[in-house]
Amino acid sequence: MNDKSIIKVSDTVIRRLPKYRRCLEELLNRKVYQISSQDLSKIIGFTASQIRQDLNVFGGFGLKGFGYNVQDLYLQIEEILGIGSVYNTIIIGAGNLGQAIVNYTNFCRTGFLVKAMFDINPKFKGLRINDVKVIDAEFLKEYLEHVSIDIGIICTNKESAQEIAKILTEGGVKGIWNFAPVDLAAKENVIVENVHLSDSLYTLAYYINHPQDY
Amino acid sequence: MNDKSIIKVSDTVIRRLPKYRRCLEELLNRKVYQISSQDLSKIIGFTASQIRQDLNVFGGFGLKGFGYNVQDLYLQIEEILGIGSVYNTIIIGAGNLGQAIVNYTNFCRTGFLVKAMFDINPKFKGLRINDVKVIDAEFLKEYLEHVSIDIGIICTNKESAQEIAKILTEGGVKGIWNFAPVDLAAKENVIVENVHLSDSLYTLAYYINHPQDY
Repeated sequence: MNDKSIIKVSDTVIRRLPKYRRCLEELLNRKVYQISSQDLSKIIGFTASQIRQDLNVFGGFGLKGFGYNVQDLYLQIEEILGIGSVYNTIIIGAGNLGQAIVNYTNFCRTGFLVKAMFDINPKFKGLRINDVKVIDAEFLKEYLEHVSIDIGIICTNKESAQEIAKILTEGGVKGIWNFAPVDLAAKENVIVENVHLSDSLYTLAYYINHPQDY
Repeated sequence: MNDKSIIKVSDTVIRRLPKYRRCLEELLNRKVYQISSQDLSKIIGFTASQIRQDLNVFGGFGLKGFGYNVQDLYLQIEEILGIGSVYNTIIIGAGNLGQAIVNYTNFCRTGFLVKAMFDINPKFKGLRINDVKVIDAEFLKEYLEHVSIDIGIICTNKESAQEIAKILTEGGVKGIWNFAPVDLAAKENVIVENVHLSDSLYTLAYYINHPQDY
């Protein structure tokens, strides 16, 4: 049965997978090796029926009456997400956010390796941040002609982001992780993930003003 | 009709509101003042029926045959989110991420004022970052006894986050915006918004491995 390749998995379900992964990792840390969808539901905050539905999309994994093997499910979700493979990444923009990302060791641990950083500001010239070299952004295009990069991480301002996305796309990256406050459009089979930190802050503001919905 | 106060609005709908806001702001910048749900749908990527449903939750706003007045809808969504009010915030953790947030001028423009930063690292002692003073984290509790703070922004490591959340909660904040890689639990009517940047990166990895779902 290979219906999975035909039916498109919804973005909502996909975005819940990292949360399953985090929750299962936490359970493994607490040495919980078996869990029912009911108990998982209490921890993760989705309904048990939602959990069964979500995981069924990818082929089930649970055994009736036994629940889920935490270790197995964790590994299968990592495989579904594609964690464990190595991704070569570069960061464009060596300001605070770029530096926060390059210093965040968890990304490296899960296979996302930062090969280089790029910035137009001469003050970063020749610097190494967390042992990653900062290169003049003028050489980004040339760099991509010689090095195969999977993911470009954009940490520049709004104004530069679209031009950089173009260079990254032409340079053959598979994905763009964009932190510039603009919705970059995906082009030529490049996956774009736009992160809007303000969305999360405004959601917090909403709940502060409507605590009854929380 | 004040049914709104009884029926809980779903988190999914609430999390779409900031995207409506962004999209409407972009339309205003492009001098588009009137839009149908069909045209809005093409730009925002939700179905027209979804848009009508979402906005109906808050009372409608559209006129049959005329669509939406962009300016009005923008202002109403800002009001629903609670943007426009002033929120006093503090940032705990003056590292790269804390600095990225204090330097992000858009938050200030929408009313989120950073009153102080806190860090245990003596290297930050006496520093001002974007004109915000960094205070020794030891004085956090005392500070909160004297200054009314709406939102505490946690940019520390995982290990310190829970203790800081406790101090913030006891210090009377209304909300916590947490960037430490741990799901902080909400307590005593404090709203907690956990940001997991890795969720977004793993979602990108998923789509790179399953482009057919994108």
